[in-house]
Amino acid sequence: MRVSVLVRPKPGILDPQGEAVEASLRHLGFSVEEARVGRLVDLEVEAGSETDAREQVERMCAELLANPLIESYEIELGGNRAER
Amino acid sequence: MRVSVLVRPKPGILDPQGEAVEASLRHLGFSVEEARVGRLVDLEVEAGSETDAREQVERMCAELLANPLIESYEIELGGNRAER
Repeated sequence: MRVSVLVRPKPGILDPQGEAVEASLRHLGFSVEEARVGRLVDLEVEAGSETDAREQVERMCAELLANPLIESYEIELGGNRAER
Repeated sequence: MRVSVLVRPKPGILDPQGEAVEASLRHLGFSVEEARVGRLVDLEVEAGSETDAREQVERMCAELLANPLIESYEIELGGNRAER
């Protein structure tokens, strides 16, 4: 099953990459008020059901894909998102 | 207007970060067939309409956010996606 995980720096957490992107976009003439940069992880997971896939990916996020202290994540199965 | 840009390595393009994530997930006991790692850019764009915002972000992707030779991108405005 195809799953996408969107990992974002939490609000208030410093994001130097986002600041650099924002500065570069402004320098290029774009009207951008804020830019934040996160990671996108696309996975092909062996799972019997959507519930099973979601549970597995929640554990993957907790163990490897995201740092819960500074990052939030969103899991997307076939276009459906669950914010965390 | 809030816009999210999902940048992914194109199929066939080497993705060492994805390979590392895949190996680590397997090592942790997860049944993952493939993992690919991309970037997620959240932007707050000054735009008069969704069309205007999308046009601006298309230009941002072409000029800074994505490398069209090796990356594809998806633009999401208020939950609606347009694949490229």
